[in-house]
Amino acid sequence: MKMFSAETYKQRREGLKKQLSSGIVLFMGNEEVGMNFKDNVYHFRQDSSFLYYFGIDVPGLVGIMDLDEGTEIIFGNELSIDDIVWTGPLPTIAELAANAGVSQTRPTTHIEEILKTAKAQQRTIHFLPPYRSVNKQKIQAWLEIHPEQQAQEASVELIKAVVAQREIKSEEELQEIDKAVNITSEMHLTAMKGAKPGLIESQLTGLVHGKAISGGGDLSFPIILTVNGQVLHNHYHGNTLKEGQMVLCDCGAEAPSHYAGDMTRTFPVGKQFTERQRELYQIVIDAHEAAVAALKPGVRFKDIHLLACKTLAEGLKGVGLMKGDVEEAVNQGAHTLFFQCGLGHMMGLDVHDMEDLGEQYVGYDESLKKSTEFGLKSLRLGKALQKGFVVTVEPGIYMIPELIDMWKSEGKYADFVNYDKVETYKDFGGIRVEEDFVITGNGADLLGTPVAKSVSEVEAVRASSF
Amino acid sequence: MKMFSAETYKQRREGLKKQLSSGIVLFMGNEEVGMNFKDNVYHFRQDSSFLYYFGIDVPGLVGIMDLDEGTEIIFGNELSIDDIVWTGPLPTIAELAANAGVSQTRPTTHIEEILKTAKAQQRTIHFLPPYRSVNKQKIQAWLEIHPEQQAQEASVELIKAVVAQREIKSEEELQEIDKAVNITSEMHLTAMKGAKPGLIESQLTGLVHGKAISGGGDLSFPIILTVNGQVLHNHYHGNTLKEGQMVLCDCGAEAPSHYAGDMTRTFPVGKQFTERQRELYQIVIDAHEAAVAALKPGVRFKDIHLLACKTLAEGLKGVGLMKGDVEEAVNQGAHTLFFQCGLGHMMGLDVHDMEDLGEQYVGYDESLKKSTEFGLKSLRLGKALQKGFVVTVEPGIYMIPELIDMWKSEGKYADFVNYDKVETYKDFGGIRVEEDFVITGNGADLLGTPVAKSVSEVEAVRASSF
Repeated sequence: MKMFSAETYKQRREGLKKQLSSGIVLFMGNEEVGMNFKDNVYHFRQDSSFLYYFGIDVPGLVGIMDLDEGTEIIFGNELSIDDIVWTGPLPTIAELAANAGVSQTRPTTHIEEILKTAKAQQRTIHFLPPYRSVNKQKIQAWLEIHPEQQAQEASVELIKAVVAQREIKSEEELQEIDKAVNITSEMHLTAMKGAKPGLIESQLTGLVHGKAISGGGDLSFPIILTVNGQVLHNHYHGNTLKEGQMVLCDCGAEAPSHYAGDMTRTFPVGKQFTERQRELYQIVIDAHEAAVAALKPGVRFKDIHLLACKTLAEGLKGVGLMKGDVEEAVNQGAHTLFFQCGLGHMMGLDVHDMEDLGEQYVGYDESLKKSTEFGLKSLRLGKALQKGFVVTVEPGIYMIPELIDMWKSEGKYADFVNYDKVETYKDFGGIRVEEDFVITGNGADLLGTPVAKSVSEVEAVRASSF
Repeated sequence: MKMFSAETYKQRREGLKKQLSSGIVLFMGNEEVGMNFKDNVYHFRQDSSFLYYFGIDVPGLVGIMDLDEGTEIIFGNELSIDDIVWTGPLPTIAELAANAGVSQTRPTTHIEEILKTAKAQQRTIHFLPPYRSVNKQKIQAWLEIHPEQQAQEASVELIKAVVAQREIKSEEELQEIDKAVNITSEMHLTAMKGAKPGLIESQLTGLVHGKAISGGGDLSFPIILTVNGQVLHNHYHGNTLKEGQMVLCDCGAEAPSHYAGDMTRTFPVGKQFTERQRELYQIVIDAHEAAVAALKPGVRFKDIHLLACKTLAEGLKGVGLMKGDVEEAVNQGAHTLFFQCGLGHMMGLDVHDMEDLGEQYVGYDESLKKSTEFGLKSLRLGKALQKGFVVTVEPGIYMIPELIDMWKSEGKYADFVNYDKVETYKDFGGIRVEEDFVITGNGADLLGTPVAKSVSEVEAVRASSF
């Protein structure tokens, strides 16, 4: 993978140290995971915070920073000649560590004693919340913390310090994100050009997935490519595309550096949208544009989310699916029948950046706690934007038959929802349009190569693909 | 995924019960694994024995069979309406279990009490060796077995019974394997047609990977596609293809049913092999054909491996890379400088079928223990073949500079290796040719659509791709 210079990693670690008081900071690298047996592994994905502070894209490593003694150590095991027959010659742990500006390395077995000694001396051991089972097990063994307690025992001081650094993207990070979004753009153009009636979703998904691999990295998250766009996280790819349907494709690549892209396009299987598809598609575009125009430092993303919701509700009222006072409808949450999720999220080394560290720290702050209401509880980012944040904007309209049936039978939001008309949209599917932006000094810039988005642009691509 | 009939799964479980005496049989299904945070998951891969006995391709399930009471239970948790918004409506656990012919289901939380009660009554709890960290943790909690002890505590009686069933493929299994190998053939043809000087390995890998996804399943193992074929498990895809080099592509797809394919082709980046590439390629083909001709019930695969080794050694002597008595050279292991691994392995629901159950049970038996010698210790299958076995045949020649340097400096096999000539091959790379076969009553049948293999066939495909 592309690493930054040793100086970059040193500066990041220095920046982290300045925010922390004392103790030992423990960074758990990831290990290989066997799919159906130990040695048949998924593609390796290093932990993102480990990548951010050390950049070493190799399994089985642990990094520590001793805040009081000022030492930094990478723990890992060297290859034997038997390994080299299978894997070829690889850099030593010391060489890998040197690339990250770390001069001390030790075998993996040494970590346990160092941590147990520190614990016996009642020193603080800062660690981030583990999400991989094997790292939970290690922390349990080393620090004698029960797996169920690990999220609570993770260091809030460390989490906040890491978030404060990682949420502001540097120029060299933005270049990597741009590469990832460019590959992502290619994936979307491939889907939009490759669709045709009679194709199975998986056939099209293969072309899209292949583009990510050809870009030198991998997927940044599992591909959603479906004629049932109303299912928000739909990974079933067995349907046959039919004229009259829409394909919702939500996918993204990682650059070789592991920075992520994440975009969504929705397009007709045929050459053109149907009339009612075009109407609702335009409403989503309007909400998207309203939100993008509002992106700038100091504005709460929650307010931009609500602005998009109001734009959606106005449009839905315009076509007779909603009714009554739009402001009040959104205040009460009536639009969540059609838009059940959030407007967007942070993006960086993770597609949902730093989601492992906790949304309360990444997307919210002391002045704004996350809501528990339906709709807002799925908004991953609420706090005020800052220059250097990278965010997605992804409004949508989703006709979920089970939710419509349930709320209709409960008479929920009956003042704002025209259920008789909604009934006729139960087979409609879903629409989402998503792009990635970096917050600038006074607004936001689109990341990556633009992909056809307006009704006319999308229909032009589709028409030229037959 | 495609499941077989409930009757098939019932028969398999009945067949298993007949081989076991008493106690409870515990089958651990797999869970989702987060890549870089909990909810950003790798593609789900169910445990293969769970698939074999229950066929349910859903995460988070556990199955038990009580041998004494005759009961069978699937443990799993139902979806809430909140889940349905994100995942769409899915079958209930009871419906999934019914498809597998299991009538009892319970919430996941009930399993612990059942197992603890059984343990308190000193009943035997049979389980297979866990390979996923989270299942190790569960078994540790439920049965109070330390993670390090789990391989030893696994039930040898159960392992042997499962191997006895799974190693003999039924007609309906062979149809699924054939589908997987057909997709695999397409992947290879894509690589062979798509290569050209100037392409980066990852660009070609993307096309190949995409074919697997388009087939409706996924990869059966990580793709090896490299100009450095001498590195046996090479997953680096960053080199640029150059005229004069060869591409070694070892890849395979899973059918949607999760049965695997696994093939290797080696072809020139240009239109033709160079003279010395063609010479060594033909030696590998000769070894491949000798091995295939020897496949039949009752013959030990170890003997076929040694036959292939002898054919390789004869060919290598013919071009002056080896010397002396060929029989003696192979007896002493001198050919392992060029062919460091095994001739092949079992294939089925796993690409290395049942590797999680232990090679000593899958590839060997009471009458034949696995060797610890270099070369033979990497032979995964040694025992006598039976009708219904599915095996790969994959001889190769690999010029590993580090190994050549080491053995030359040690004077190892100096009577059989012409090191002066070998020195001139240190930049040669590697060649492997691999196909999949089912053992029939009196021989073996090739699985899947044949792909260009002979020198002239491969060169014809390459010539037509420019």
